[in-house]
Amino acid sequence: MLKLYGFAASNYFNMVKLVLLEKGIAYETVPFHGCQNPAILAVSPRGKVPALETEHGFLSETDAILDYLEETQSGPALLPRDPFARAQVRAMAKEIELYIELPARLCYAEVMFGGRPTPEALKRKAQRDLIKGFTALSRRAKFSPYVMGDQFTLADVYFLYSVDLAAEVAKKLFDLDVLAQMPKAGALLELLAKNPNVQKVAAERAADIPLFLERIKTAG
Amino acid sequence: MLKLYGFAASNYFNMVKLVLLEKGIAYETVPFHGCQNPAILAVSPRGKVPALETEHGFLSETDAILDYLEETQSGPALLPRDPFARAQVRAMAKEIELYIELPARLCYAEVMFGGRPTPEALKRKAQRDLIKGFTALSRRAKFSPYVMGDQFTLADVYFLYSVDLAAEVAKKLFDLDVLAQMPKAGALLELLAKNPNVQKVAAERAADIPLFLERIKTAG
Repeated sequence: MLKLYGFAASNYFNMVKLVLLEKGIAYETVPFHGCQNPAILAVSPRGKVPALETEHGFLSETDAILDYLEETQSGPALLPRDPFARAQVRAMAKEIELYIELPARLCYAEVMFGGRPTPEALKRKAQRDLIKGFTALSRRAKFSPYVMGDQFTLADVYFLYSVDLAAEVAKKLFDLDVLAQMPKAGALLELLAKNPNVQKVAAERAADIPLFLERIKTAG
Repeated sequence: MLKLYGFAASNYFNMVKLVLLEKGIAYETVPFHGCQNPAILAVSPRGKVPALETEHGFLSETDAILDYLEETQSGPALLPRDPFARAQVRAMAKEIELYIELPARLCYAEVMFGGRPTPEALKRKAQRDLIKGFTALSRRAKFSPYVMGDQFTLADVYFLYSVDLAAEVAKKLFDLDVLAQMPKAGALLELLAKNPNVQKVAAERAADIPLFLERIKTAG
């Protein structure tokens, strides 16, 4: 059986978990926290959550894992069959990751974990990048009702687990309401919140957050 | 005919160009410089180089473009056929991009273009991230002789166009010789430099660098 390594407060872990649930794939979870210890690096060369243990060995990097699941598992397809449409979904997912998730992540410690303030130069970079990232989202996304059309795809998985956190960062640190110009994005978040698998992931996340904050505090 | 938008001094542009050449795909290039002008955003929603114009429309984001070429074009395959091996190649390419290219890129203006010094907080982040990124590369890469084994893959394309620039950043700013622990990485760079397509891309890059620096100076 596939084993998903990570912890439920991690949004990348939750991307893979949701895909496993949506495809109806049996899996176990294994507690795993990213760092540079040799035992962790033996599972994930960059020491990152999540990792997936398969019969062939460990996989890491969320989108490599998601492509692998797409290529090897049954259940609903999360990429369109047409190569051009697939590429557009991949580009959207990538843009959400690089230009929304990663800049917001520079500020997570301050905004989400009550950690130390983000250095000013990083904060300014995050702000500039988030504005461009949300502009890109508004230009490419269809929200009809899903990010790239009438099919739930990997772009929705990235959207679901990155956009709400990034919007919180933009609101708290920069007083920017990045979703105000995109009412359909809010509507999609509401639609996705009705999905029972999304609800299961959210419930497990909520239960894990206090443990996660406790770990952060102990480590800091 | 496919049209590749961008400029030859861009390492991401060169990743796509090398793949087009390796697969023997006819293409034209169209001069295109990333920014947030509406005309540029109509081609690439995030205003980034490169973009690829196909008969179906524009594609952006290098790895979405590379996957599209892999799925639609003939010529040598640049991903293994086995899904687990494919996923490992994708994970390696992703790790090079996220953990080597992107941190080094924070410092390109200072190191490559004679631009303003990188803010100290960004520089410290780049240094921390580069050390972990190169550790990940040394743990995952096989260099036998190619990054992931005996087949030239997309991981080699990312390696070729990110690792030398990142190593230059590490050397100049942090006095770190990141390739010293990986003699096989240096041997692979030498092997790749003998490839006529790599030589063509390098010659076009060398010819474009002065024009690129001139544009930067004018824009700055």
